[in-house]
Amino acid sequence: MLSKNRIKYINALKIKKYRQMHEAFIVEGAKSVLELLDSDFKIEFVLSTSEFRQKYSSNLSRHNAVTETVTLQELQGLGSFQTNDSCLAVAKTKDNAFLSPDMAEYALILDDVRDPGNLGTIIRVADWYGITKIICSEDTTDMYNPKVISASKGSFTRVTVFYTDLGSYLSANAAEKKVAGAFLGGKSIYDYNFSNSGGFIVMGNESNGISKEIEAFVTDKVTIPRIGEAESLNVGIATAIMLDNMRRQNAVKR
Amino acid sequence: MLSKNRIKYINALKIKKYRQMHEAFIVEGAKSVLELLDSDFKIEFVLSTSEFRQKYSSNLSRHNAVTETVTLQELQGLGSFQTNDSCLAVAKTKDNAFLSPDMAEYALILDDVRDPGNLGTIIRVADWYGITKIICSEDTTDMYNPKVISASKGSFTRVTVFYTDLGSYLSANAAEKKVAGAFLGGKSIYDYNFSNSGGFIVMGNESNGISKEIEAFVTDKVTIPRIGEAESLNVGIATAIMLDNMRRQNAVKR
Repeated sequence: MLSKNRIKYINALKIKKYRQMHEAFIVEGAKSVLELLDSDFKIEFVLSTSEFRQKYSSNLSRHNAVTETVTLQELQGLGSFQTNDSCLAVAKTKDNAFLSPDMAEYALILDDVRDPGNLGTIIRVADWYGITKIICSEDTTDMYNPKVISASKGSFTRVTVFYTDLGSYLSANAAEKKVAGAFLGGKSIYDYNFSNSGGFIVMGNESNGISKEIEAFVTDKVTIPRIGEAESLNVGIATAIMLDNMRRQNAVKR
Repeated sequence: MLSKNRIKYINALKIKKYRQMHEAFIVEGAKSVLELLDSDFKIEFVLSTSEFRQKYSSNLSRHNAVTETVTLQELQGLGSFQTNDSCLAVAKTKDNAFLSPDMAEYALILDDVRDPGNLGTIIRVADWYGITKIICSEDTTDMYNPKVISASKGSFTRVTVFYTDLGSYLSANAAEKKVAGAFLGGKSIYDYNFSNSGGFIVMGNESNGISKEIEAFVTDKVTIPRIGEAESLNVGIATAIMLDNMRRQNAVKR
């Protein structure tokens, strides 16, 4: 039976302050936990229904994960998501380590993306298009928020996120790189040539777009052409379309 | 002060059965209500804070909307979204009228899209790319669900949705049309030529994709190329990328 301490600990990890204090975060649901078990994240423990434990015993033992069997009722009382019917893991967060794109590589920059669902979607989309580095402003939502982890559908295990002061970061690291930023009224993404030497793609805040401070580092303002009348696109959608256009060009150039 | 009957009525409209019974639905928040006021939807009434009412009095009077002033507290007790700090409207639903693409027009087909957030996102994305007709399977989520309306960000006023038995619909209406469907393992969307004569683009269920019954009508299986490792893309994202590729081709052909 689940101890009160463990329940208290898991509930605390829903709050950023306690995630930072304990350097740990929650992963919920079969798909995400299975990807976690396949990753290099350190796992504190897995709470699993007996059904999940049986079905995936080899996955659990491969990672040598401390596993406690819990009832469905215990599990659903714990997590953020009522639909979780199989397992919940607590893993150690990784250090906020410096990231920059290698030669010919593109990294994503997020300037104050606030919605956890959007950040999770962006991580998933980045993973789809083979982008493995995301540099975030310090006020971008915490990647270890359970809603980010859930929306990333396991892609948080393959995409690395670095939080930093974006102005200082770009001053120091973007000198000879292309910095493409998504703006209304920029050059059509259909006509824009992504650089073969790589660089950065910047996406801005849900309401205000890219800030003035960061705009100053943008070398190429690009726009997703609109045919109809919607006022804007969601930042997760816009990121996907930017990356799709970049990869399509690479496919065509090859 | 809000009458108990009105509160009861609004709460009932969160449920599909009552929306169908009363032929009415809820629209929440300033942006969506302003778009509603600009549309041809019939409005039963608007509940508005005195601030919103003053600021947008001309919008309200242009549509001749019956408006009741409510307190912020009353408003937030009512809707589905805690963040609503300005207004809520109840409007009449439209008849489920037959739709088909005109010559050279593409319409979207949704085969069992279940998540209201996804349907709302798809309506918004369709509106961005100038697609105004969506044909949905009968088990696709109800477009008048408050979460769909909210996620569509006002685009529900410009995009028309028709619910029907897709098998019968396609038998009767797709005979000489191209029907492109999103599949894993189809032809790359980068190499696919969308037809100048228009047709249909089919998107499938979040977990199961396009059903076998509907697959039989698909003339062209297309795929969004994956560079990285994410297992899948969200159906809202995938729809956006399909439509972006279609519009890019049109832009290039022109």
